[in-house]
Amino acid sequence: MTTASVRVTAAEAAQRAKIALRNAGVPEASAETQVALLVEAETLGVASHGLLRLPRILERIANGATDPAASGALSWRGTSLVDVDGQQGLGPVVAIAALDAICARVGETGIAAAAIRNCDHLGALAFYARRVAARGKVLLGFTLSEALVHPWGGRRAMIGTNPVTIGVPTADRPFVVDLATSRVSMGKIHDHANRGAPIPAGWALDAAGDPTTDATAAKSGAIAPFGEAKGYALGLGFELLVGALTGCALGDAVRGTLDSKIPANKGDLFIVLEPNGRMAGALSLYLDQIRASAPLDPGKPVRVPGDRPDAPDAPHAVEFTLPRQIWESICGHAAV
Amino acid sequence: MTTASVRVTAAEAAQRAKIALRNAGVPEASAETQVALLVEAETLGVASHGLLRLPRILERIANGATDPAASGALSWRGTSLVDVDGQQGLGPVVAIAALDAICARVGETGIAAAAIRNCDHLGALAFYARRVAARGKVLLGFTLSEALVHPWGGRRAMIGTNPVTIGVPTADRPFVVDLATSRVSMGKIHDHANRGAPIPAGWALDAAGDPTTDATAAKSGAIAPFGEAKGYALGLGFELLVGALTGCALGDAVRGTLDSKIPANKGDLFIVLEPNGRMAGALSLYLDQIRASAPLDPGKPVRVPGDRPDAPDAPHAVEFTLPRQIWESICGHAAV
Repeated sequence: MTTASVRVTAAEAAQRAKIALRNAGVPEASAETQVALLVEAETLGVASHGLLRLPRILERIANGATDPAASGALSWRGTSLVDVDGQQGLGPVVAIAALDAICARVGETGIAAAAIRNCDHLGALAFYARRVAARGKVLLGFTLSEALVHPWGGRRAMIGTNPVTIGVPTADRPFVVDLATSRVSMGKIHDHANRGAPIPAGWALDAAGDPTTDATAAKSGAIAPFGEAKGYALGLGFELLVGALTGCALGDAVRGTLDSKIPANKGDLFIVLEPNGRMAGALSLYLDQIRASAPLDPGKPVRVPGDRPDAPDAPHAVEFTLPRQIWESICGHAAV
Repeated sequence: MTTASVRVTAAEAAQRAKIALRNAGVPEASAETQVALLVEAETLGVASHGLLRLPRILERIANGATDPAASGALSWRGTSLVDVDGQQGLGPVVAIAALDAICARVGETGIAAAAIRNCDHLGALAFYARRVAARGKVLLGFTLSEALVHPWGGRRAMIGTNPVTIGVPTADRPFVVDLATSRVSMGKIHDHANRGAPIPAGWALDAAGDPTTDATAAKSGAIAPFGEAKGYALGLGFELLVGALTGCALGDAVRGTLDSKIPANKGDLFIVLEPNGRMAGALSLYLDQIRASAPLDPGKPVRVPGDRPDAPDAPHAVEFTLPRQIWESICGHAAV
């Protein structure tokens, strides 16, 4: 009973998480959306974006930083571009409402976008890419974060981890890319620090801006961009792109995705496109050619992004492991 | 008279290049566009995308692989998405016609895209980003190439170098990113081979798919993606994105940007967005904060993509150096 983790079924976890959110004032449908995102991350093995995020979401609601009932106010700036004031709502709730609006329009327009500001953390962007691809559309998605990444050749964290997602429907499962433009996540650095393990050279700088392999020192420093100068250019480019479209806060003025008290002021951008209907088979064939191509290491077949089981047939049958502390916190909130 | 390079003014180079294209059957306005792109690359020091490309363009026209008079056939698939059949026209001619069409529409729609197939090599994508940003719009641009890049963990070239551009207008000069998703260009590997110099470990594989530092061996092999697994995912994601929108050839079926005889069958995608008009000052301020931030090396200030002189005030006053062989070829075509 004192082990550090517990094994729960997805169904039970979803049930408790929904009650916890309902108890915090989140409407039924919104709780469903927020929980679907967190539980999907758990069932796909992406624990960093799973239920460990729920206690903070509940704290933010309790502290008034997040409005549990908001789903965003939409204002069409053009026939294919909607500005979304997130009204400090839950990230997935605002994002799904925005995506529904632009997906409904894209059949007529061919492309449509939502420029979102002032909503909470979106969670794993792959969630949205899979949903849009399941509707037969292509998604390009961007979201910003607090400044955690240093410019290439710089010492200070001035750029978000700025993930990007690309979702493309094919003749079989959707192709989904979802990656941050930081070399690693701050979560991974915290994980090394918790275990007292050093981090590899090149991952991060310390608070003085000097290269470090001390994970604890890196926590107050800056993470390197992925891919050196090119990754820096892309991450910064995404910050400018989202900033130009949404009017959100930039760089070290961004707040509200890492704490429990401050209203979020970052931006998100979704672009949905209507694919050429005759390409699905060719896309699947091409991906199969890549999967079947000769690997560098005979024991490690070439993989395509999204090749993790991305849409389990029966997610509610799945079990996963949660830190006991997280599970007990969720059960506590559900019992109120 | 036997030196390997010559010094020419941009004005004279542009003049001769235009005559060479006119002699090949390219209409005046199209020659102007193609030459503007090549000469701008020279004046910005990007010789790899400059006038050395012109002899091949002329050969392609002579061989019937490129139609000198085509500018693309536009067909609106939705109110904000135009399909462009490039009709084997010159890349910049088809691309500028497509961009003009979507820029004219984006004021009303907020976002508009052009999905282009079957036109020649576009040249440096930054050219388009600067032009769109100068009109106060944001550009996201993608183009594919022949398969030159290996999947992360794979041995064979199966993905294009797939560059991406992001152009964002600010209160001063536009922010412009333009980068390939390959670790280096094949041109750089050829340059090492020509000089008999080895290439750094990690750049490329040989024809058998084994890592090599022999530049000549790498010429018939595959280039690494930039940024390891993440760069692979992005480059492949761009291939899927452009393929899904345009219906173009994919992977090792792509032809026509590296040779003089085969009609081009790759795809390109441009997305133009209307920025939030109140953000220009904030974007410039943010970029200035990055430029002014502490550098890792005190002698190397932090740079922002696009910080090279991106729009010289008097480009036609500029001189640059060309390989004598290229200049003599252009002059020969201009004298016909």
